[in-house]
Amino acid sequence: MTTLYQHGTLAQLMAKEMAGTITIQELKKHGDTGIGTLDGLDGEVIFLAGETYQADSTGTVNHITDELTTLPFATVHFDELATSSELNLNKVAFENLSDILSNQQITNVFSALKVHGQFSRVHVRIAPKQSRPYPSLLEVAQMQPEFERENVAGTLLGYYSPAVFGGVSAPGWHLHFLSDDHTFAGHVLDFSAVSIIGTLQIFDDFIQHLPVENSAFRSINQDMSGLHEGIEASEGGKR
Amino acid sequence: MTTLYQHGTLAQLMAKEMAGTITIQELKKHGDTGIGTLDGLDGEVIFLAGETYQADSTGTVNHITDELTTLPFATVHFDELATSSELNLNKVAFENLSDILSNQQITNVFSALKVHGQFSRVHVRIAPKQSRPYPSLLEVAQMQPEFERENVAGTLLGYYSPAVFGGVSAPGWHLHFLSDDHTFAGHVLDFSAVSIIGTLQIFDDFIQHLPVENSAFRSINQDMSGLHEGIEASEGGKR
Repeated sequence: MTTLYQHGTLAQLMAKEMAGTITIQELKKHGDTGIGTLDGLDGEVIFLAGETYQADSTGTVNHITDELTTLPFATVHFDELATSSELNLNKVAFENLSDILSNQQITNVFSALKVHGQFSRVHVRIAPKQSRPYPSLLEVAQMQPEFERENVAGTLLGYYSPAVFGGVSAPGWHLHFLSDDHTFAGHVLDFSAVSIIGTLQIFDDFIQHLPVENSAFRSINQDMSGLHEGIEASEGGKR
Repeated sequence: MTTLYQHGTLAQLMAKEMAGTITIQELKKHGDTGIGTLDGLDGEVIFLAGETYQADSTGTVNHITDELTTLPFATVHFDELATSSELNLNKVAFENLSDILSNQQITNVFSALKVHGQFSRVHVRIAPKQSRPYPSLLEVAQMQPEFERENVAGTLLGYYSPAVFGGVSAPGWHLHFLSDDHTFAGHVLDFSAVSIIGTLQIFDDFIQHLPVENSAFRSINQDMSGLHEGIEASEGGKR
């Protein structure tokens, strides 16, 4: 039995509710590996081996050690080699990632990808911190800084979610990157690599945790029209 | 912490995959109360106090005691009075249920409704068992028998799911009914009652369990176009 744990939904960020509603301390009970964003959509977070790193919108990577820091949205799992498939990917880029993994039959299930190596190119965006009254995720996406590195060693980490869960998560891939030297990170818009290795972990259970005690969340007026297109435009992931 | 557990998705039934993939025995580890359907979309199931009842398409209610019986789709929870709000509903019908419960702020969260009493009228449908090659949920819905009772004592039980989870679940209400004398049950299309009492339980965690070991499920070609309209037409629930 393998479990993926998510706090908050992308739909809620689209509905302009981006205040932090879970602490890193609480999240760590559910995983040591994952991705997310801090209070106010502040940057791009990557959890690796129980450590928390955040790329802020200046492009700086911060090691977040205050475990009371909050997040409005995060997805985590326990990285377990025993229940994962080993991957050895050659001539891989975001656009052919799903094709290369097609023998894994991941279309209808949740899975985690964690690959490491020398990347030829990584192109990321980093959400800038917002204040109340919050804009929507889509409005932030339209004004977010982008960064690019060539020949960078690092870890590409994130999740594949079935299309049916679009709105809850980003349908398809949602990947973050962290360079080994911790000087470059972000939400991945594109990447390419000659040879990288890692793992794919498929989950039986997807636990969606909602901030039910949060009155702002409870009173969201969720506009379903344009939600899926908005998430597609904001997340820029690939199916 | 309260948890709602779901096996399978409505989207998968729309995609014509309705073979049983979890046993009653396994489901009971995750709840003693809930709703579902048997292998092949065979009828409407209600779990009450750990017992399993199925209305088949002749309108007969069967007490299912073989715990190896399988289901393609089911949603269950542990009925806990301590974490529930007590309800005393007057002059309630399906069409005004959400209005009557508006002070509970359930729009963005998962919740279970369990109410008991004398119903003025209950109108149900019961899905008839299908064989391979399976039709879609919508095709079944267009040829399913409907039944109605007046002045019937029983239990109305089911869930409210946020719109964002439409496709995964039925957005809004998904309710089943079982009469106290076990002669009438089904998937509720409409109901009315002068006075019924019960509970509303709000969940922090929604666990979506997927039949990841099932090759038919893994190879579903999920058609997203028309999915939401199809579920709306099939489930006939109310927001």
